[in-house]
Amino acid sequence: MRVAVLGAKGKVGATMVSAVQAAEDLTLSAAVDAGDSLSLLTDSSTQAVIDFTHPAVVMDNLKFLIDNGIHAVVGTTGFTDERLAQVRSWIEAKPGSAVLIAPNFAIGAVLSMHFAAQAAKFFESVEVIELHHPHKADAPSGTATRTAQLIAQARKGLPPNPDATSTGLPGARGADVDGVPVHSVRVAGLVAHQEVLFGTMGETLTIRHDSIDRTSFVPGVLLAVRRVAEFPGLTIGIEPLLDLK
Amino acid sequence: MRVAVLGAKGKVGATMVSAVQAAEDLTLSAAVDAGDSLSLLTDSSTQAVIDFTHPAVVMDNLKFLIDNGIHAVVGTTGFTDERLAQVRSWIEAKPGSAVLIAPNFAIGAVLSMHFAAQAAKFFESVEVIELHHPHKADAPSGTATRTAQLIAQARKGLPPNPDATSTGLPGARGADVDGVPVHSVRVAGLVAHQEVLFGTMGETLTIRHDSIDRTSFVPGVLLAVRRVAEFPGLTIGIEPLLDLK
Amino acid sequence: MRVAVLGAKGKVGATMVSAVQAAEDLTLSAAVDAGDSLSLLTDSSTQAVIDFTHPAVVMDNLKFLIDNGIHAVVGTTGFTDERLAQVRSWIEAKPGSAVLIAPNFAIGAVLSMHFAAQAAKFFESVEVIELHHPHKADAPSGTATRTAQLIAQARKGLPPNPDATSTGLPGARGADVDGVPVHSVRVAGLVAHQEVLFGTMGETLTIRHDSIDRTSFVPGVLLAVRRVAEFPGLTIGIEPLLDLK
Amino acid sequence: MRVAVLGAKGKVGATMVSAVQAAEDLTLSAAVDAGDSLSLLTDSSTQAVIDFTHPAVVMDNLKFLIDNGIHAVVGTTGFTDERLAQVRSWIEAKPGSAVLIAPNFAIGAVLSMHFAAQAAKFFESVEVIELHHPHKADAPSGTATRTAQLIAQARKGLPPNPDATSTGLPGARGADVDGVPVHSVRVAGLVAHQEVLFGTMGETLTIRHDSIDRTSFVPGVLLAVRRVAEFPGLTIGIEPLLDLK
Repeated sequence: MRVAVLGAKGKVGATMVSAVQAAEDLTLSAAVDAGDSLSLLTDSSTQAVIDFTHPAVVMDNLKFLIDNGIHAVVGTTGFTDERLAQVRSWIEAKPGSAVLIAPNFAIGAVLSMHFAAQAAKFFESVEVIELHHPHKADAPSGTATRTAQLIAQARKGLPPNPDATSTGLPGARGADVDGVPVHSVRVAGLVAHQEVLFGTMGETLTIRHDSIDRTSFVPGVLLAVRRVAEFPGLTIGIEPLLDLK
Repeated sequence: MRVAVLGAKGKVGATMVSAVQAAEDLTLSAAVDAGDSLSLLTDSSTQAVIDFTHPAVVMDNLKFLIDNGIHAVVGTTGFTDERLAQVRSWIEAKPGSAVLIAPNFAIGAVLSMHFAAQAAKFFESVEVIELHHPHKADAPSGTATRTAQLIAQARKGLPPNPDATSTGLPGARGADVDGVPVHSVRVAGLVAHQEVLFGTMGETLTIRHDSIDRTSFVPGVLLAVRRVAEFPGLTIGIEPLLDLK
Repeated sequence: MRVAVLGAKGKVGATMVSAVQAAEDLTLSAAVDAGDSLSLLTDSSTQAVIDFTHPAVVMDNLKFLIDNGIHAVVGTTGFTDERLAQVRSWIEAKPGSAVLIAPNFAIGAVLSMHFAAQAAKFFESVEVIELHHPHKADAPSGTATRTAQLIAQARKGLPPNPDATSTGLPGARGADVDGVPVHSVRVAGLVAHQEVLFGTMGETLTIRHDSIDRTSFVPGVLLAVRRVAEFPGLTIGIEPLLDLK
Repeated sequence: MRVAVLGAKGKVGATMVSAVQAAEDLTLSAAVDAGDSLSLLTDSSTQAVIDFTHPAVVMDNLKFLIDNGIHAVVGTTGFTDERLAQVRSWIEAKPGSAVLIAPNFAIGAVLSMHFAAQAAKFFESVEVIELHHPHKADAPSGTATRTAQLIAQARKGLPPNPDATSTGLPGARGADVDGVPVHSVRVAGLVAHQEVLFGTMGETLTIRHDSIDRTSFVPGVLLAVRRVAEFPGLTIGIEPLLDLK
């Protein structure tokens, strides 16, 4: 399979260039960066493109790719509802085109959220603990907030967490995200970690994800490249590719 | 819903009697033990029975329950393929009967295994660590062995765990269960715990189950009682009731 | 060694009666409860007493024990500074008497706090996560508050935890105990657990204590009984008996 | 304080150069590598040197440093008993000289071992679980082996771990290091992690060290540089600098 990287000189793009080169079943057809012509892609018979570029150029890239029947796996950010609608309409005009846009390619993170949502309704209690390096600006993390929201959605109609806390210090019980307590730990030496803790009579279930390196997106991007053609149209997130049941 | 307990004076049965009495949506219709007549069940208009009795009597119980249109949730052990075939043939003669037989009602344990099997094919490496009190006779535990087998099955055709170990002490790398290393820890103060650790480039995913009390089967049995009627025929294990996807 | 239990019919006292009986090197000389005469202790040649009684009677017990040269290991609560001064003055009149009063006999908990205090000054960051069953009224727990205070004391003069949090939800970063963030998790199926997480460049150190059963005080009480005679005078807490260095 | 780095162009040495430059209380007096003259150290009024060089040159370095009254903090390997005796005899001739040689500067690792040795005699059971990336050649790790040996030494004379295992698979119960079971986990995405798990009636204590980056030695080396002058003579390991009690 012939695969090109757009944004090939960026930090993430360069990592993907190496990853494609290292994969036995993939051939790097082109490494394209700002200033290069997109015709490099068609000239090189590229079948699928990995796009880690910039919100300012990603729409032009997608138009070109869809027009030329090249599948796209996109990690670039900035996709509003309007942009997604635009991409959908382009694809409709070119049936068979496949575009996958994902906010998070780390398979472990995606599985964690999926499992947490599934387990949510079977336990009396659930809390989220996310742990990051101390340079992080937001607390809770975006992933923890989304995880808590997914859990809350799955628990709609169920009783809230039991909690007899009557005295204490402000903040001890964490932040409240749709009824799910979320605790944010910031400690030097950590990278990005999250634990979802479920409990009921006599047992607990913990789903923990540790990401210690920025390369953790690589296996998810490669999986997407290999399977994107099976998913014609626009796909959001890699979850549909994981065959979960 | 009118629910009876068979084996009501046994340790597990007594716990289930209390649990049914405490559940707002369930009524305890009868508490039956050795020596009592099964007609107590029909006399009390019992709709579903929880059976934690003994292999020597459970088949007679099931015959009676199926004949009388009473659903059964069974935690009693000793079901061979022959016994299961017999139960199936009884049910065929009484369509609408529902019998659920489960080796493990702890929802956390069942979810752990399900999640582990799902995650198995997306990571380069996987190992199982099970931790129990030191009075346990078998190592690895039955649950760990089954978990490893399910994982191995899901990874069929994939490369084995990478492992550069070339020198060391015997046993350091654990037991081999179908290619999955399993480590058995026995420490005073523990009860029953299991961790499945998956890893790939830059990230790990951990699924951990802690069972610290023999009551951990209660929520699973109650769930089974509430939903068994929706599953006519013979169901093995509570997994089908968990609506996993 | 001849050991008696005061408060022998209470829940804790009864556990201690069994524990003394099970210990090969100890003999249960008397099991005394409310209404019994303290002369049972002298009549039985008791050498050391375990007192889990009540604040209303413990001072009378101690007076009697000190007067009769019987060593005391006390888990009863309610010791004010005045009471401790009173005990000290009684002991002064009877040199050789040994009284040990401890708020917490769980060796793991005591070691956790000791280790946390020692590690405190070598890491940039430290946070405390305590996890309990949802029936607990206070958050943070008393143990977590004390642990955080000990850590803060050891870090006096050092820079505070680095923390770039600039946006977020109230409570996400936990409660502030003398500058140490403390997070309180309340989940069904838990008992009493605490994690102290230290971190600096590239590494973290975690000290975790799990108490899953009310018997966790037993080994600490037995240790105190065996060694109390070596510590004449009044000793607060079992830490001095642990030979830490 | 004026500090030089020997082996300044090596991977570790370069990291130390940056670390000294970043430390407000330290001044980098010289960065010396192979081919440079050691007189750079005396010319620059260096007070202390960090040596991460090579066994082939480290002895000459030490001779020079001791002769010139410059303190040394040494991470270079290859110190046999003979070499240590030689260093000691050089120092004797120059009282006031301070040399610290350490096999491991990660403070978290050193504290872990110290705490494990202290806790060892208060628990019925102890096991070690070490977890590393799958490129590691030895199992158990050297650190795990040393940790288990220290624990075994502290437990001399105590009963062995209780263990009722009677059936199972070979390897399940780990490797035996002086009676302490050690389990070696090898999973992609991990770096270097170790957990010591102690347990007794109703409670467990876990001491866990996670090292996720090769920079974890930096704080320990800086601590050693700042305090080495207080420890005239030869010191092995950074433990004496940690003021443990």
